[in-house]
Amino acid sequence: MHTVFYVSDGTAITAEVFGHAVLSQFPLPFEHFTIPFLEDEDKARAVKAKINDSFHQSGKLPLVFHTIVDTTLRNIITSSDAMCYDFLNTFVAPIEQQLGVKADPRAHRTHSMDNKKHYDSRIDAVNYALDNDDGVTTKEYDEADIILVGVSRCGKTPTCLYLALQFGIRVANYPFIDQDMSRLALPPALKANRHKLFGLTIDANRLQEIRQRRRADSRYSAAEQCRYELSQVERMFRMEAIPFIDTTYHSVEEISVKILERTGIRRRIY
Amino acid sequence: MHTVFYVSDGTAITAEVFGHAVLSQFPLPFEHFTIPFLEDEDKARAVKAKINDSFHQSGKLPLVFHTIVDTTLRNIITSSDAMCYDFLNTFVAPIEQQLGVKADPRAHRTHSMDNKKHYDSRIDAVNYALDNDDGVTTKEYDEADIILVGVSRCGKTPTCLYLALQFGIRVANYPFIDQDMSRLALPPALKANRHKLFGLTIDANRLQEIRQRRRADSRYSAAEQCRYELSQVERMFRMEAIPFIDTTYHSVEEISVKILERTGIRRRIY
Repeated sequence: MHTVFYVSDGTAITAEVFGHAVLSQFPLPFEHFTIPFLEDEDKARAVKAKINDSFHQSGKLPLVFHTIVDTTLRNIITSSDAMCYDFLNTFVAPIEQQLGVKADPRAHRTHSMDNKKHYDSRIDAVNYALDNDDGVTTKEYDEADIILVGVSRCGKTPTCLYLALQFGIRVANYPFIDQDMSRLALPPALKANRHKLFGLTIDANRLQEIRQRRRADSRYSAAEQCRYELSQVERMFRMEAIPFIDTTYHSVEEISVKILERTGIRRRIY
Repeated sequence: MHTVFYVSDGTAITAEVFGHAVLSQFPLPFEHFTIPFLEDEDKARAVKAKINDSFHQSGKLPLVFHTIVDTTLRNIITSSDAMCYDFLNTFVAPIEQQLGVKADPRAHRTHSMDNKKHYDSRIDAVNYALDNDDGVTTKEYDEADIILVGVSRCGKTPTCLYLALQFGIRVANYPFIDQDMSRLALPPALKANRHKLFGLTIDANRLQEIRQRRRADSRYSAAEQCRYELSQVERMFRMEAIPFIDTTYHSVEEISVKILERTGIRRRIY
């Protein structure tokens, strides 16, 4: 098995996202090691020794994906017995030429708190999602960017949290209750904010599987109940012209991006 | 201002992370457009027209960061009046040669549900974080990977959610209450799981600022109270030998990665 190292003087999240995206195209298993916060020469030499050990033990050159600003530290890592891929610097030179501006590797850093205002608005969005989760209150819907609606356990909460944490967007969520579904009517708090509503739906079998893990052999997790709720809610989405998507075969990332695409709302943070 | 397009046949999240990491090194403002789910030639031609418009209006070549598997669609985009950067394919060829294996761009996809087992465990981790947020229950601590402890509003909840959503790790959190702090003793449920405890602390002024936004001019947000709680909690961390970090100047990503580094726990998902 090939060994892969993700090495950075920051969180190494960018190196991981990049390396993983490239390696996901190869139908091979890999062993992954992440080394964040590479901040001094001792640590860099220890990492180099670990990379070299991996080569000597396996006989296969390890792959190293790195993002390291400091040249001395970077040179220690790239002198390892490994194939090193420096995706930032590979692109910085042509972009410098194109923009006619020199890069300043210390100007900004990703995944840090350099932009405190952005950072606070992101944490506020997480708090908003938690305070307005699961219909616990409808009083703050005026402040919502989006209000997700759907049956219980169709994927609303993880989507709200992802949109808040990654994109800084304020998303409330409201689970339709029996009364809403039998009357086929939106409750008043939702009516007043109907332009913010976005629906989620899900395959009935998948919903039953999820509810079964949550509350086994209950009315809540019965196949018939799942089918009934979904058919009523989808009727309501159509009647009220609420845009909606099926979450069954989509990840939280895909659902979140589809919602942004359909609503035209843009992410606040990168 | 330069315009930047992130174009992908998937969520475009990888293209955004990559492009943003590169551009964050340039001390310039950019206007960003993200185009996910580029799935047919009509959409590709419309995006090309939009890119070309941007060039003709500004006189500056737009930058395009793209990850597009389909060659026809990719060729439409790369024939735009723009500087196009294809970071996946730039690295795929040398890695193919190194590994002696041909890449299969459709083999796996990032940010999708291709690995359902991984995906379910990630959503379970989010549910675990929510069910075990803010000390609401201590009964499920046996199932925790980590239990974050600290005063109210020191950053525990966003960190738990990030570790769950991005890394698939089960993290509970417990806010110390008056009784714990005045007695300087861990409650029994924490004692039984002390090897899982990880402490967060924060600067007193920053804590006061955060609490003030939450509950203005209360005992909770008084400077003296913030200082008292933090000093008691830090004493407890030292007495009980609980590892801890200061969250004041760190993002959720940095805190999360530091916790993984200190505990040796490895992320479950990429």
